[in-house]
Amino acid sequence: MTNLTQTLSDQGVTHPDVRRSNLGLALRHLRDHGPRSRATLAADLGMTRSTVSTLVSELIERRLLTDGPLVQNAVGRPSTAVELDGRSVCGIGAEINVNHVSTMALDLRGDVVEERKLALDARSLDAALVLGHLADLVRETVACLDERGASTVGLTVGVAGLYDQTRDVLTHGPNLGWYDVPVGTILRSDLGGTFPVVVDNEGNLAAAAEVSPGDPGRQDILVLHGEIGVGGGIVSGGRLLRGSHGYAGEFGHMIVEPGGRQCGCGRQGCWETVSGLRALLEMAADPDDPIRNPAMALDDRLAEINRRAHLSDARTLQALEDVGVWVGIGAAILANALNPAAIVLTGYYAAVGHHMRSAVERELRAGVLAPDSGGTRVELSTLGFSAAVRGGATASLESVFADPTQVPRRAAVAGAVV
Amino acid sequence: MTNLTQTLSDQGVTHPDVRRSNLGLALRHLRDHGPRSRATLAADLGMTRSTVSTLVSELIERRLLTDGPLVQNAVGRPSTAVELDGRSVCGIGAEINVNHVSTMALDLRGDVVEERKLALDARSLDAALVLGHLADLVRETVACLDERGASTVGLTVGVAGLYDQTRDVLTHGPNLGWYDVPVGTILRSDLGGTFPVVVDNEGNLAAAAEVSPGDPGRQDILVLHGEIGVGGGIVSGGRLLRGSHGYAGEFGHMIVEPGGRQCGCGRQGCWETVSGLRALLEMAADPDDPIRNPAMALDDRLAEINRRAHLSDARTLQALEDVGVWVGIGAAILANALNPAAIVLTGYYAAVGHHMRSAVERELRAGVLAPDSGGTRVELSTLGFSAAVRGGATASLESVFADPTQVPRRAAVAGAVV
Repeated sequence: MTNLTQTLSDQGVTHPDVRRSNLGLALRHLRDHGPRSRATLAADLGMTRSTVSTLVSELIERRLLTDGPLVQNAVGRPSTAVELDGRSVCGIGAEINVNHVSTMALDLRGDVVEERKLALDARSLDAALVLGHLADLVRETVACLDERGASTVGLTVGVAGLYDQTRDVLTHGPNLGWYDVPVGTILRSDLGGTFPVVVDNEGNLAAAAEVSPGDPGRQDILVLHGEIGVGGGIVSGGRLLRGSHGYAGEFGHMIVEPGGRQCGCGRQGCWETVSGLRALLEMAADPDDPIRNPAMALDDRLAEINRRAHLSDARTLQALEDVGVWVGIGAAILANALNPAAIVLTGYYAAVGHHMRSAVERELRAGVLAPDSGGTRVELSTLGFSAAVRGGATASLESVFADPTQVPRRAAVAGAVV
Repeated sequence: MTNLTQTLSDQGVTHPDVRRSNLGLALRHLRDHGPRSRATLAADLGMTRSTVSTLVSELIERRLLTDGPLVQNAVGRPSTAVELDGRSVCGIGAEINVNHVSTMALDLRGDVVEERKLALDARSLDAALVLGHLADLVRETVACLDERGASTVGLTVGVAGLYDQTRDVLTHGPNLGWYDVPVGTILRSDLGGTFPVVVDNEGNLAAAAEVSPGDPGRQDILVLHGEIGVGGGIVSGGRLLRGSHGYAGEFGHMIVEPGGRQCGCGRQGCWETVSGLRALLEMAADPDDPIRNPAMALDDRLAEINRRAHLSDARTLQALEDVGVWVGIGAAILANALNPAAIVLTGYYAAVGHHMRSAVERELRAGVLAPDSGGTRVELSTLGFSAAVRGGATASLESVFADPTQVPRRAAVAGAVV
């Protein structure tokens, strides 16, 4: 092993694996650190310039990179930067919600290319019919991407409920009224059998959307996602912690008040009974108040709550304070266990969070054993209610960064992926 | 990149890195899957036989592997198996506890080579003095290992309290009465400055000790460690989750009963007030009962509790049941968040756990949203109170598996490491 002229095959490492791994390394580096010249990329990755040139050429042939603007190097003349090519490859995310199904296509740079949404009442429809509607949206999205000359690498679907990834079955979807539905199998069959489909809990995908590649402050985070139900995800070292069956992140059913309020799950004192959207609405308004009308768009109802809070309406402010305290109490339980760099509030928490934040931070400081909340920051997501569908699209794209050779070279592109 | 005769240096990968990585791969494979012939090892790792022979020769030269018994291959004649060499390299773990300091040396196979323990009353002594006693134990251990011809790769120390790994300081050690003590710096200075010392929370190390290399059922586990305080650790994908400052695993201070019992930390309703050893002892016996006498060895007191439970003493059984219920309630909170494959009970939980287990499992089923507790098993540790010190020794050895070249070749061994 000390002979420095040994070739790779003597080392027992096969060429295609090394090539794939190096292509992925270069692509991720440009995603995480932005456009740069081949010379800088070579220096960053500790590779020779000729190796990097070969890698970059192949990634350009696969339409994953493109030549960008001129940049000044540390020494010598300016040279052309390479950057991710946003035009050619997209990942699709989707969401199955009580009130709608939706899709989003993101390009390699993370920019939104396509969004579709179909309002429906999932509870009153057969699961197969709802999934049929979603498959239609996916087909329309793929057709639209095809027209733009972009190919699709796969679909990742977020669903509200317990998704057993070992069996690929939604075991328990109380909000949808779905039990033991093989969502992945049905969608794969609807989409023609060869389309790559992954299904995951929507809270997990919303969490994945909050990880910023290359940002050290967004690699160990706890994402709390508030809607009627409360869930989220744990990201450790940049990777989503899914648990042994994919059931991790069911924060809403932590019992925070033994003997407390009745939860839809049949237990008492679950965190979502005091921190979910219903708790806020019931405290903030009488039953006939428009903000409690489920027929009104949620964004409008939350905007109205913000408007009232801004006008210092006492009942609204008290409700936000009370819910904020409970959010902080549950957040402190999780922060004692996980010591995240940040707790990111998503869903309705993000929409009205600027009025709850001080209560959350106060309870976090009070409830976390480590000094200064263990260094955990409280942040509001800027992704709105599209976090889960965006996280799905990001997850779909992840396979390209893991193995760029799955995207065909330029000559072979037409119709090759989908 | 398509030229199959390219050499490694053309690929921009430097030889020493590849060699180190392959040496570590081979060593870990033999640790995780047991002794096997060079031919089997080559097949397992997808390397050529000549590559594996070279790797094995180097690992034997570094005294990390040794030739073992003859084994029958799938085809051909029997051949010699290689296995981890337990004689030459050891890692040291240590623990600083209220009542003692202790050390344990493990060889590469995970077998105990040396154990030392010094009883002392840490609260009545200066921190520097306690650490001086620990440094003495470490020096004695190293000398003893030297005599056997074994070298030491490092020391990992478990301490009860909040250890800020970013600053290398015990910020908060209420049981020891230590605050802002730079434990790592003091020990490094005591040990001569070049000895590798890492300090970690004892619950984290107890958790690391429960990960069984190569066992898929022990890669995603939640370890709950019960003493007077309650802590533990989260293992995800075989790696300990430390959190952003190393404060993860402070389970004992999750508030499970708002407005409940006063905790030593100043809060009310912390989990350890109802699930820690003190709660059990106070329920199980009057103040003058010998099992509540802190001067008696803990093992003896727990043995007495087991004896009474075995004789169906009603008060003892009720106390174990009541504490088991609370252990289960807290375990369910964490299982909803983490969905571990197993919850491993360590410390006093392991000692009396066969009397608490049914209560823990019942509350887990009741409190976890996912069906059948999300598949989470409840297991009792078999490591006893030495789990933390064993986890420390395992952590020290981890550096050898990450980079076997840090252990010198045979000719250069004498006095080279310590």
